[in-house]
Amino acid sequence: MSRIEARLSELGLTLPDPSAPVANYIPFTVSGRILYVSGQIPRKDGKIWPVGHLGQGVPVEQAKEAAGLCFLAILAHAKTATGGDLDRVARVLRLTGYVASAPGFGDQPQVINGASDMAVAVFGEAGRHARSAVGVAALPGGAAVEVEAILELA
Amino acid sequence: MSRIEARLSELGLTLPDPSAPVANYIPFTVSGRILYVSGQIPRKDGKIWPVGHLGQGVPVEQAKEAAGLCFLAILAHAKTATGGDLDRVARVLRLTGYVASAPGFGDQPQVINGASDMAVAVFGEAGRHARSAVGVAALPGGAAVEVEAILELA
Amino acid sequence: MSRIEARLSELGLTLPDPSAPVANYIPFTVSGRILYVSGQIPRKDGKIWPVGHLGQGVPVEQAKEAAGLCFLAILAHAKTATGGDLDRVARVLRLTGYVASAPGFGDQPQVINGASDMAVAVFGEAGRHARSAVGVAALPGGAAVEVEAILELA
Repeated sequence: MSRIEARLSELGLTLPDPSAPVANYIPFTVSGRILYVSGQIPRKDGKIWPVGHLGQGVPVEQAKEAAGLCFLAILAHAKTATGGDLDRVARVLRLTGYVASAPGFGDQPQVINGASDMAVAVFGEAGRHARSAVGVAALPGGAAVEVEAILELA
Repeated sequence: MSRIEARLSELGLTLPDPSAPVANYIPFTVSGRILYVSGQIPRKDGKIWPVGHLGQGVPVEQAKEAAGLCFLAILAHAKTATGGDLDRVARVLRLTGYVASAPGFGDQPQVINGASDMAVAVFGEAGRHARSAVGVAALPGGAAVEVEAILELA
Repeated sequence: MSRIEARLSELGLTLPDPSAPVANYIPFTVSGRILYVSGQIPRKDGKIWPVGHLGQGVPVEQAKEAAGLCFLAILAHAKTATGGDLDRVARVLRLTGYVASAPGFGDQPQVINGASDMAVAVFGEAGRHARSAVGVAALPGGAAVEVEAILELA
C-alpha cells in the first residue's frame, strides 16, 4: 500500500468514486509536473451536500466538512492521474475555494480550512499550499462550496 | 492553412479581432509551454452580449452561446501568441467559467458547456480540459459570462 | 539594493510585513519557475480596508487604491519567496482580481487596474500580465477586493 493510502486509512478516510465527466470537460489534465484538477463540489450518498448559502442557513461547520469532502474528491482524481499511486503527488500547490455566500458573510477562510486541513492531514508539510477563498453568488446544483486544485507531481 | 484554421472554417467559425488591451494588462502571457489567456467576455457586433444575470432574465441557451464566443476570443489571442499558427496549441489545460448568477441559479455547468463544446469541436480530444464553473455577483460591463484559459503549447 | 527595491523606493512605496499564515495554507508555493501567491486582501494600519461592496457604498477610487495595496502584499510574499531579492521576479504572469460587487456593478476592471498599474509601475514591461476581473458576492472579513497572482521567477 502506498504511503498516502496508508495515511488515508489511518485517518479513517475513504476516497469517493471519481465522478464521471458530465460534459466536454474532464476531471484533470497534466502538463509536465503540473496536475490541474477540475472544481469539485461536495456530495454525501451521491447527492450534492450541503445545498444553500453561507450566512443564510448553511452553518460554517457543515460547509467546512464539505470542503474537506471536496479535497477528497480532488484526491480521487489525483489517484487516477497518477495511475493509482498517490505517492507520486509531490505537493499541493494551490487551492481555490468558492463559497456560496450571502453578501454579509465574511468567513470564507473558515469554510475553506476544511479543505486545507484535509490536505495537511493527508500530505503533511507537502500539503501546505497557496490559497484563495472567495464568496460567490451561486454554485452548480446549489452547492454551498466548490474547491479546485493545482498539484505538483513527483 | 493550418489544421486548426481548416477545422474552424469547416465549422463555419470566424475568430473575432483580438481585443486590444484597455489597461496595464495584456491578453496573454507565456511561460515555457504554458499560455495564460486573460478572462474574455462575449461580444456581438462589438458590444458586450448578453448583459444581465442567469436566473434573472438571461436564458441558459443564450449564455451558453456566449460562452462559445468567449472561447473563440481566447483562440483569437492564442493565434497571436503562436505567431498565427494555432496548430502550435497542444491542448487546452484548464477553463474557468464565471457566470453572472441570481442566488437561486445552479446551472453554471450548462452555460460553460458552450465554451467546453467549442474547445472540443475545434481541437478534438486535445480540447478536453479541467474546468471550474462558478456563479458570480456581477461581471465587467454587465456581461453574463466570462471565461479564462490555460493552454499548453507544443 | 536590488533594482526593484530601488524602484519601490523611487515610487515612495513600502512593502507591508508579509502576513502570517492563519491556517493550514501558506502565502506562496513555488514549482519550477512558477510562483503561486495566495489571494491577498487589502489592509490599512493592520485592518482590512475598505470593507463593503462596490456599487453599494465603496467608491471605485478607494477600491482601486486597495487593489494596489493587494499587489504590494503580493510583492512582500514574493520577496520572501526569492530570499529577499525581488530582482529574481522575471515577470508577472497572471492576476485574478475579485471585487465584492452589488449585482448592478460592472466596473471591476477599473478597480483591478489599481493592481495592474502597480505591477507595471514596479516592474515596467515585465509587469504586464494576463488578467481576469470578476465581481463576487462577498470576500473574507468583508473586504472589498482580493487579488491573487502567478509570477515567473528568473
